[in-house]
Amino acid sequence: MSETPIPVSQLSEFCIACFEKVGLAAADARLTADNLIFANLRGVDSHGVIRLKIYLERLRAGGFNCNARPQIVSEHDSAALLDGQNGVGQVAAMAAMKIAMAKATKTGVAIVSVKNSNHFGASAFYAMQALADGMIGFAATNAGPSMAPAGGREGRLGNNAFALAVPAGTFPPVILDMATGAVAWGKIFLAQQEKRKIPTTWALDKNGIPTDDPNAAAHQGLIQPLGGYKGYGLSLLLDILTGVLSGGGFSSHVRTLYQEVAKPSEVAHTCAAVRVGAFMPIEEFGQRMDSIIQLMRLCPRASGVERIFVPGEIEHETAWRRKAEGIPINRTLREELAGLATELGVQARFL
Amino acid sequence: MSETPIPVSQLSEFCIACFEKVGLAAADARLTADNLIFANLRGVDSHGVIRLKIYLERLRAGGFNCNARPQIVSEHDSAALLDGQNGVGQVAAMAAMKIAMAKATKTGVAIVSVKNSNHFGASAFYAMQALADGMIGFAATNAGPSMAPAGGREGRLGNNAFALAVPAGTFPPVILDMATGAVAWGKIFLAQQEKRKIPTTWALDKNGIPTDDPNAAAHQGLIQPLGGYKGYGLSLLLDILTGVLSGGGFSSHVRTLYQEVAKPSEVAHTCAAVRVGAFMPIEEFGQRMDSIIQLMRLCPRASGVERIFVPGEIEHETAWRRKAEGIPINRTLREELAGLATELGVQARFL
Repeated sequence: MSETPIPVSQLSEFCIACFEKVGLAAADARLTADNLIFANLRGVDSHGVIRLKIYLERLRAGGFNCNARPQIVSEHDSAALLDGQNGVGQVAAMAAMKIAMAKATKTGVAIVSVKNSNHFGASAFYAMQALADGMIGFAATNAGPSMAPAGGREGRLGNNAFALAVPAGTFPPVILDMATGAVAWGKIFLAQQEKRKIPTTWALDKNGIPTDDPNAAAHQGLIQPLGGYKGYGLSLLLDILTGVLSGGGFSSHVRTLYQEVAKPSEVAHTCAAVRVGAFMPIEEFGQRMDSIIQLMRLCPRASGVERIFVPGEIEHETAWRRKAEGIPINRTLREELAGLATELGVQARFL
Repeated sequence: MSETPIPVSQLSEFCIACFEKVGLAAADARLTADNLIFANLRGVDSHGVIRLKIYLERLRAGGFNCNARPQIVSEHDSAALLDGQNGVGQVAAMAAMKIAMAKATKTGVAIVSVKNSNHFGASAFYAMQALADGMIGFAATNAGPSMAPAGGREGRLGNNAFALAVPAGTFPPVILDMATGAVAWGKIFLAQQEKRKIPTTWALDKNGIPTDDPNAAAHQGLIQPLGGYKGYGLSLLLDILTGVLSGGGFSSHVRTLYQEVAKPSEVAHTCAAVRVGAFMPIEEFGQRMDSIIQLMRLCPRASGVERIFVPGEIEHETAWRRKAEGIPINRTLREELAGLATELGVQARFL
């Protein structure tokens, strides 16, 4: 499909203008746009401006509360609980991360949980806030049900995700940002189109049986958790650390982004920060990180492998390239953005 | 293979006597034995008394320092760094967990890292310490290299593991205890002892080829990471959170339990505790946990599935059964224990 690169600044100002148009405060509009653009820059297009339309739809329908201001429910030296007031997930999660960092500066580590929130985009965005302050950042979220517990055949867990961001020395930071499902739906749809079988570890059919038939998967099937019961465990524990611990929604109480757009989705997040300086000088830690990164990169390679990456490295390089070259937007998405521009009466320099 | 159930108390007193015989202080001997028996009780035999022989060998050779006392290197309100003095991993990790819990009681959450430690057995043992105090417990360890980074063919990461333990209400706690490999290394040793083949998804032989022969895997082979690059990412991040953050060994600096038994293995651990009461009353949390547990258990089942479990549930039930019936020990292990009894001149009531 033909793709046009759009300069980052143009895409960004368009998102901001759209968000402001539907009633989001300027700072919140910028933050939310930054998060979507962040994902596109890093090549994680599934969490980028492809989500702009549904975000605007939820903001207008009331599923995202435009006027939400995250409120502190309770607070301790190294922990806090926020109420996101059903606002944009980005706003609530960023507030949580900032509080975690401020507390970790004093005590060494802190954890902040958020209830009554919504979809927050790419997890790495929050975890990476910690880097500039010499901290390890963590951000996790639950999501509307799309996976079954091991042995089940009904969605009772989200494709819950988390990110860990660790500062390095001369190398880029190590960023692990992963969901707990075995695969994205997109890969199953692609196999369907290309009439290819899929590995039996990817999906379940409607009876909860692993299938190599992408059509059986797509017809009321479910994604399998990563690595079977371990991925189920990871997903459940993320739901506990976000939804259960925060007092927010969990399991089947959580709505997906596209479900009942006028209602809050009851998503919950948890952010945490660890101050490296509580353990050793950040310079020493940076050297140690560079050392482990080199140990990975310089590992003897399997035949056919050209390069070994550490988590976040590909995304880092993609971001540099896209900052220079713009963000590639395919025709379908371009038309969707053009439709939004017309509908909202918002200017888009790239159209 | 014929298995004889041995009463827990008899197996426990034998382990303690062996540990004391080679010079471990009484309290450390009991703690280490408790950890091995804990694993056997829960059916995790790969981390049980099958490790007694190598522990004793390392204690006598000096790879485990009998006289180590974990020392606090640095301390903050919610963080601490310990030096394990190359002692038994169980002793250092338990010290770390206790400090994390004491700090989390005051601040809400705490993290304690340990350098210069050794193999610490089952991670859940430490994480579960937090439960009685109404806390969520976390324990992680790195290990000698047995996995390659994605695309590599040389061991540069351990089958690094972590456990998360979460208190519930009327149900048993949820305990996720998982390594980042497709399988625990100990299960390959168990298959070796029992002369069983292993699934080809578990390990690579020394040439990097998937193998179903546990001997080929054990002879300079590698564990395959859980779900490919995601398991690689998890393992690397655990190494960072333990080895890099603590100032201890990481990646290929760490020795496996069976390597150079006279030298410290430079293993590192990190423990953490989150006080549930910092977020909500523990009773309310217990009810919420019971609710998510029921949502998993009562999920409509896939055809052929009789029951859906939450993480730790099978181990919990196995522990109750084995407390009553004894711990099944196969003939190979029984002979190994008999050999140790003779060699050390230690009585074993079950022989």
